[in-house]
Amino acid sequence: MEGQGKAMMMEGVENSKGREKAAVGGACDLVLRLLALALTLAAAIVVGVDNHTKVVPIKILDGLPPVNVPVPAKWHYLSAFVYFLVANAIASTYGAFSLVLAIINKGKSRGLGSLITVLDALMVALLFSGNGAASAVGVLGYYGNSHVQWKKVCNVFDNFCHQFAASVLLSLLGSAAFLLLVLLPLLRLQRRN
Amino acid sequence: MEGQGKAMMMEGVENSKGREKAAVGGACDLVLRLLALALTLAAAIVVGVDNHTKVVPIKILDGLPPVNVPVPAKWHYLSAFVYFLVANAIASTYGAFSLVLAIINKGKSRGLGSLITVLDALMVALLFSGNGAASAVGVLGYYGNSHVQWKKVCNVFDNFCHQFAASVLLSLLGSAAFLLLVLLPLLRLQRRN
Repeated sequence: MEGQGKAMMMEGVENSKGREKAAVGGACDLVLRLLALALTLAAAIVVGVDNHTKVVPIKILDGLPPVNVPVPAKWHYLSAFVYFLVANAIASTYGAFSLVLAIINKGKSRGLGSLITVLDALMVALLFSGNGAASAVGVLGYYGNSHVQWKKVCNVFDNFCHQFAASVLLSLLGSAAFLLLVLLPLLRLQRRN
Repeated sequence: MEGQGKAMMMEGVENSKGREKAAVGGACDLVLRLLALALTLAAAIVVGVDNHTKVVPIKILDGLPPVNVPVPAKWHYLSAFVYFLVANAIASTYGAFSLVLAIINKGKSRGLGSLITVLDALMVALLFSGNGAASAVGVLGYYGNSHVQWKKVCNVFDNFCHQFAASVLLSLLGSAAFLLLVLLPLLRLQRRN
């Protein structure tokens, strides 16, 4: 009788520890999801409002003084920047939906949990490809490339470039949060089995 | 006695089903890993040997006929292409190592299994950022951009561009294989719990 009682007590303690761990895991998931949503939303907004105009002196005819022409720099001028903004907008919208779903679900439905993880992984792929595209074109803007005769533009549009770099950094942090959202449940499940 | 025998038989059948499922999962993991290794290696090789030279008529002085100058196109002229090749080379090397480790481990060590999954996820991030960078610069090469006055170059180096596009496609398929390598064990574990 005494042995049976002890075994039941041990089982109870283990169950309570398991529930505690699940609650901590759930809270960690929600915080990460909120972070991912906030960072990708901030990245999308920072690049969306990145709109600078610089007055550039342009020589139209020899012998005449150069004419000051206002030249704008906008995110939608380059397809890589459009892709970057759309990727971050999709990720932040998904982040908001998945946050609500995760709060409602609380690990009850396995199917919904699996769907959220698959979509998290797709967000990782989408965001990292967007970051890669934006960074590659950003590097070209900063340094230019003599082999293909693409001149640097960030010496003129320095404010635009700095704001864009900040946006890429925010997006990278958001992508890292989504990466952790994919990895943490996996590591938890592998440890449990 | 009869009831006990039936219960033991049911447990035996369930265990055997579980072992069968684990074996199928393990084989699926190995095939995907081999595919990921082969595709990223092929992508790295295709871009590494992508080296075309085109004879371009260049006018040096007015009044003189244009001089035919051989202009080479190489992958290491653009930092995005270097990043793309390095990402694919790292992923294929890791693919080979992880294939050997997965064969030796056969799901025995949980720690090693978790480490492989974390590294698989990092490969997804690395490869997708490389694909994004290469595609963004590739699009600029194909179409140019009038806003920043970057002229298209693929009208001259068409063979180089076609070979590069094939390499990006191979790398995308390899990245998808790594993405599945991250997702499949997760979905298996979530279904089991």
